[in-house]
Amino acid sequence: MGEKYDIAIIGSGPAGLSAAINAKIRNKKIIVFGNKNFSNKLIKAPKINNYLGFYNITGVELKEKFEQHIKSMNIDIKYEKVNNVYAMGEYFTLMMKNETYDAKKVILATGMEFTKPLRGEEEFLGRGVGYCATCDAPLYRNKVVTIIGHNKEAEEEANFVGEVASKVYYVPMYKSEYNINKNIEIVKDMPVEINGKMKVQTLILKDKKIDTDGVFILKDSVAPNQLVPGLEIEDGHIKVNRKMETNIPGCYACGDCTGKPYQYMKAVGEGQVSALNAVNKLDNKM
Amino acid sequence: MGEKYDIAIIGSGPAGLSAAINAKIRNKKIIVFGNKNFSNKLIKAPKINNYLGFYNITGVELKEKFEQHIKSMNIDIKYEKVNNVYAMGEYFTLMMKNETYDAKKVILATGMEFTKPLRGEEEFLGRGVGYCATCDAPLYRNKVVTIIGHNKEAEEEANFVGEVASKVYYVPMYKSEYNINKNIEIVKDMPVEINGKMKVQTLILKDKKIDTDGVFILKDSVAPNQLVPGLEIEDGHIKVNRKMETNIPGCYACGDCTGKPYQYMKAVGEGQVSALNAVNKLDNKM
Repeated sequence: MGEKYDIAIIGSGPAGLSAAINAKIRNKKIIVFGNKNFSNKLIKAPKINNYLGFYNITGVELKEKFEQHIKSMNIDIKYEKVNNVYAMGEYFTLMMKNETYDAKKVILATGMEFTKPLRGEEEFLGRGVGYCATCDAPLYRNKVVTIIGHNKEAEEEANFVGEVASKVYYVPMYKSEYNINKNIEIVKDMPVEINGKMKVQTLILKDKKIDTDGVFILKDSVAPNQLVPGLEIEDGHIKVNRKMETNIPGCYACGDCTGKPYQYMKAVGEGQVSALNAVNKLDNKM
Repeated sequence: MGEKYDIAIIGSGPAGLSAAINAKIRNKKIIVFGNKNFSNKLIKAPKINNYLGFYNITGVELKEKFEQHIKSMNIDIKYEKVNNVYAMGEYFTLMMKNETYDAKKVILATGMEFTKPLRGEEEFLGRGVGYCATCDAPLYRNKVVTIIGHNKEAEEEANFVGEVASKVYYVPMYKSEYNINKNIEIVKDMPVEINGKMKVQTLILKDKKIDTDGVFILKDSVAPNQLVPGLEIEDGHIKVNRKMETNIPGCYACGDCTGKPYQYMKAVGEGQVSALNAVNKLDNKM
């Protein structure tokens, strides 16, 4: 079992950072998972005029302001991907590639950058479909595995699985040189549907079919209800109330993942509300 | 009839200003009512650490950042008090001391600085109780009027009513020199209850009773449901949904007046959401 935190915050965009500073001010032990850019959307913004207090600022400049702010408060961001969040009753367990973390409350600030699931993906999740190839590799000893890789980090996972499985197909969803071991077959085609009876049997692509025992889809972020099993989604967004509570007690959400408008101030406001409500629950009792 | 605006914003704290910049960016004709300090709460804050992007800033400094922002966008604030907002169907009429404004949408960002109503105040509103003495003075020709003044501006209204009414009592709720005409009786006592049958007959104070035909309560801001007749209140706050819509179509609310936490980022986020939803309604149809 990993370290135990009061609040785990998943996401380092404006919503996640806002949640972080508010929880930290209230003296909670927090952990924040995110990436070096904080938010890919933010750093790409050429000009922002509607973040009150900063007129005519670029996304990169605003990112630097955020960075100064959290550094002044000694808040670190872990550059690790959370694969799954499981509600354990009084706490949550966050599953990473190589370790786990426990937290009493979880705040989802995952944005809207995830890709639409494949046909069959949700249906076969846990029955041949997975999001962490290295985690589940032992299950596929001497079996056929297909890896749909959305980024270069997926190559490393493919190579690892290649040492265990009898056959590995690698379907890259990006253009690059591929650092893939020779025993792995690269398939340049577009995945369309995952098929099978009780378990995964076939991956249907645009131009061909692959018979496979497992399909791993490796991307930067997964859809929230794949991240947190049982999470209620409404019109494509995490359903929350005015306290930013989801349907899972102790699990909050904020920012773009809760719905439109996809805007920075909406995000920071919701991040604050989610953190302060989580803090109140922690202070009053579990 | 006054000028017609797309959106009227009542309040110049973080919520109101956020609504203003977002509506302005979307090219709406806006009018903002507020005060020179923007927010009395903000300028009194000694140190703010949880407004993402500004660490360790004073309330006055943050107010200056806000001021630069709205000046850069040519947004003016009208230092006038809105006495009433009436829903007219397709638009709203805002009643000021000497004029009216019409707006298709109204955003309430009034904060939580209003005082608790007196016993009987809401019951007799419009039947002897009012919030604008100069507006209603003609109704009290040769009658007895009592003015409960919460600020020095009330003195001027009292003097004006004194020219019309047969008798004016002035109950100051603040300590100061009073610039009150000699024909007006100053009552240094604490109002407790407004009483009467069909209409106001008596103001009961802590130590005495005054027989009076009308009571004007003149303060910086009135409770939201006194400002907007019919507005639904829940647990002391304006009831809103996730789009910041109140129960009155076309009327939005944001910031402290919609509920806790009373925090700046929550306020700016809600201001943004209310403005963008109002803009969407305007753009799609009335």
